[in-house]
Amino acid sequence: MSEDRPTTIVIFGASGDLTQRKLVPALYNLHRKGRLPKGLKVVGFARNRLSTASFRQRLEEGLKEFDPQAYEPHAWAEFAESFEYLTGNLDSQEDLARLKTYLEKLEAGPADRLYYLAIAPQLFEPTVAGLGAQNMEAEDKGRCRIVIEKPFGTDGASAHQLNLSIQKVFREDQIFRIDHYLGKETAQNILFFRFANTIFEPVWNRNYVENVQITAAEQVDIGHRAGYYDQAGVLRDMFQNHLMQLYTLIAMEPPASFEADHLRNEKVKVLSATRPIDTSHVVVGQYEGYRATAGIPPDSRTPTYAALKLYLDNWRWQGVPFYLRSGKALKAKATEIVIEFKCPPKVMFDQTYDADFSSNVLSICIQPDEGIHLRFEIKNPDSNYERRSVDMEFHYRDYYRDGDLPAAYERLLLDALKGDASLFARDDEIEESWRLIDPVIRACCPPGGNEPVPYKRGSWGPAEADRMMEAEGHKWLSGCVHP
Amino acid sequence: MSEDRPTTIVIFGASGDLTQRKLVPALYNLHRKGRLPKGLKVVGFARNRLSTASFRQRLEEGLKEFDPQAYEPHAWAEFAESFEYLTGNLDSQEDLARLKTYLEKLEAGPADRLYYLAIAPQLFEPTVAGLGAQNMEAEDKGRCRIVIEKPFGTDGASAHQLNLSIQKVFREDQIFRIDHYLGKETAQNILFFRFANTIFEPVWNRNYVENVQITAAEQVDIGHRAGYYDQAGVLRDMFQNHLMQLYTLIAMEPPASFEADHLRNEKVKVLSATRPIDTSHVVVGQYEGYRATAGIPPDSRTPTYAALKLYLDNWRWQGVPFYLRSGKALKAKATEIVIEFKCPPKVMFDQTYDADFSSNVLSICIQPDEGIHLRFEIKNPDSNYERRSVDMEFHYRDYYRDGDLPAAYERLLLDALKGDASLFARDDEIEESWRLIDPVIRACCPPGGNEPVPYKRGSWGPAEADRMMEAEGHKWLSGCVHP
Repeated sequence: MSEDRPTTIVIFGASGDLTQRKLVPALYNLHRKGRLPKGLKVVGFARNRLSTASFRQRLEEGLKEFDPQAYEPHAWAEFAESFEYLTGNLDSQEDLARLKTYLEKLEAGPADRLYYLAIAPQLFEPTVAGLGAQNMEAEDKGRCRIVIEKPFGTDGASAHQLNLSIQKVFREDQIFRIDHYLGKETAQNILFFRFANTIFEPVWNRNYVENVQITAAEQVDIGHRAGYYDQAGVLRDMFQNHLMQLYTLIAMEPPASFEADHLRNEKVKVLSATRPIDTSHVVVGQYEGYRATAGIPPDSRTPTYAALKLYLDNWRWQGVPFYLRSGKALKAKATEIVIEFKCPPKVMFDQTYDADFSSNVLSICIQPDEGIHLRFEIKNPDSNYERRSVDMEFHYRDYYRDGDLPAAYERLLLDALKGDASLFARDDEIEESWRLIDPVIRACCPPGGNEPVPYKRGSWGPAEADRMMEAEGHKWLSGCVHP
Repeated sequence: MSEDRPTTIVIFGASGDLTQRKLVPALYNLHRKGRLPKGLKVVGFARNRLSTASFRQRLEEGLKEFDPQAYEPHAWAEFAESFEYLTGNLDSQEDLARLKTYLEKLEAGPADRLYYLAIAPQLFEPTVAGLGAQNMEAEDKGRCRIVIEKPFGTDGASAHQLNLSIQKVFREDQIFRIDHYLGKETAQNILFFRFANTIFEPVWNRNYVENVQITAAEQVDIGHRAGYYDQAGVLRDMFQNHLMQLYTLIAMEPPASFEADHLRNEKVKVLSATRPIDTSHVVVGQYEGYRATAGIPPDSRTPTYAALKLYLDNWRWQGVPFYLRSGKALKAKATEIVIEFKCPPKVMFDQTYDADFSSNVLSICIQPDEGIHLRFEIKNPDSNYERRSVDMEFHYRDYYRDGDLPAAYERLLLDALKGDASLFARDDEIEESWRLIDPVIRACCPPGGNEPVPYKRGSWGPAEADRMMEAEGHKWLSGCVHP
């Protein structure tokens, strides 16, 4: 905030989990780094009857619990002064009018505003409509922006409807649709890695790449989120947003700049050029025990795992399979992108050693062990022609201390405050992504979808996903997780 | 030796340093690995009056001193039985005839023979002529090969003359000219690294490479080698052979196979396409104190350091400078090849951060810390556009134990025994290399050469060598040595 304009953040749903867990720890860390606008106000608005004092206390407890290393009583006490709380109903025009008056009084003059919708998705539309009815999107006293949490729609039609409703009130450049994967340092670094280096871009195409694998594996199961999860399933929860975002970053052409629309134009180009997914290239699974979870119907067919193959019909990627997979209750927590390169020609090497010929593999670890691994071949010492694979590795932890890699929400909140939308999804990006995932959901999810294949907790998902790759002579690879 | 034919090695100059230090330890290690032909005989031949018993004792002392980790009394005692010694003069036909008879009696039937010339270079020609006069190159009872140690000639004319003399007696495929740099695992690995991997070859050309740097730095001074060194100087001692060999391995096109002539054809192609070196692109230096060394004339102009730039006018390398340097009494011992890649286009990055834009650097460390380093750019966490350089590293020591990397002579001796000449220099290769270095020596060495620039011991050589690179916007880089 180089301009340091008076600024108010209004968090709708401020008494909820996200505020305590993510938003306030992120704001607190930004405050300690001196990156927030001076005199920033944060107004919590929610149905719960809370005083400002008890709101602040609740946030402090959250900070202690969710970011204990960062918590420091004096710094918090100072920052806590920024927080106010107002009780109100989102669907009450009266309450919204009261909020409006409250904000104007608090600001006492020109101020930028950031509305943050940390509320249930079914409340997005009515809340935005209510803000519109109160004319609270107006920019007569400063800039006004709105952050929408995920999930953004449950299919293409509902996402489109949601876009239309929000855009009735806010211009597209005021709207910030969050995908917290884009706030992760290692996800952002994909573009730096690709375009700030000379040696990777020349091989980043179908001439040299055999296949691309994007994995977002979770070790945890659905926990207490039965109600949400059984409706969503893994395709809505992970694919339409996070995996498709990583996919666009890996596959996109170099943008003219990192400016939001330059970047998002390129991402939309990737999605537009992606061939509709052949649903015979999709494997869905459900971990054993899922149906016994409290709140899950005993005959639920919701997938907790999916793997699919897609193709991008452009000059760079024609014919290169992209494999995407994600699931819960898997063997390890790992978000990772693997580029497997083609095998080099073998003729110059002794043919008897063909068996041990491995391809080069570049793996970008997004979490938990952020870094980059490059598998390549060397000659086995003291042999004539034997080869073996070795790893060159870069780990963020070797260069940065714990805490140097900020939480995703820090960057995203700061960017939204600055009005930089590069790391947020645009309307067409979201809808193009749904266009690809919708048919998969229709074919593979209830109602009407296939029965998901059961898989063991702590496994790597159903064997069908391995077989899908074997059919092409490929297999799942990992540079981060050593099996 | 899969065929395990009866074999005799004859070492001419067997009472010398090389036999004790390098040849016998290498043979001993090959013996322990079970790689030598069964019943191998090693006959030492030299002027010194030694009994076989005292010869063996001398070799044992050498082994204890120069490879103490490998020395094991029982294994040595067993292997020592293979060694015989015969006193004789190389220039005496009578003595050579005696050796011939001795060998025939010892072999008592068909046997392969390997003659090893571990003698002063001025004795190469008479010795080979003597062997010819005795018809000892004949292959009627088995294969017959000859290993010639360096230096091979003192200029192009003498090397050519030496080739002619040797080829009067031996066919080219019987001749093995040693360059021990080619026996080093990391030097051999250059070709594997380049051609057993997919991702490096596409950027290994003038489209992506800014410059190539080959450094062979020694920390030691000339020690007790004044007599040899002052005649040779660094250009003959290091450039014509070792540095030019590394240069051809880095620059060559992929050979059809690793078969000796396929490989050497490609190396000769590199040398033939190399533009004559512009002697204004040469810096020669002499370390301070050199002239005070016992045996060095007080006005010696022999260079102990040289740096030069050369160009290879072919499709792959046109316009890319290759910088070669080597010297004695430098700051560190390091043999290293550095590929500096071009900077990527910067326009998509915030212009204010241009200053910290670094190019990618690949460095191949030949010695002492064998490995590969890749410098690339990442985004600095918690920043928008700041970049920094980080290293991905591969070290042989992480994958292999001490001793897994065999001494260069092990591989070379074994290959010579097998008749595999891939790691030995061919006649035309040596002569082409002299063709390039001769004019440099004429311009920069006595008699008639420039005065070498003095440089401090423990420095990186004369500043003039830095300035030569600065003129092109380049600088000396190292991945192995951290300054």
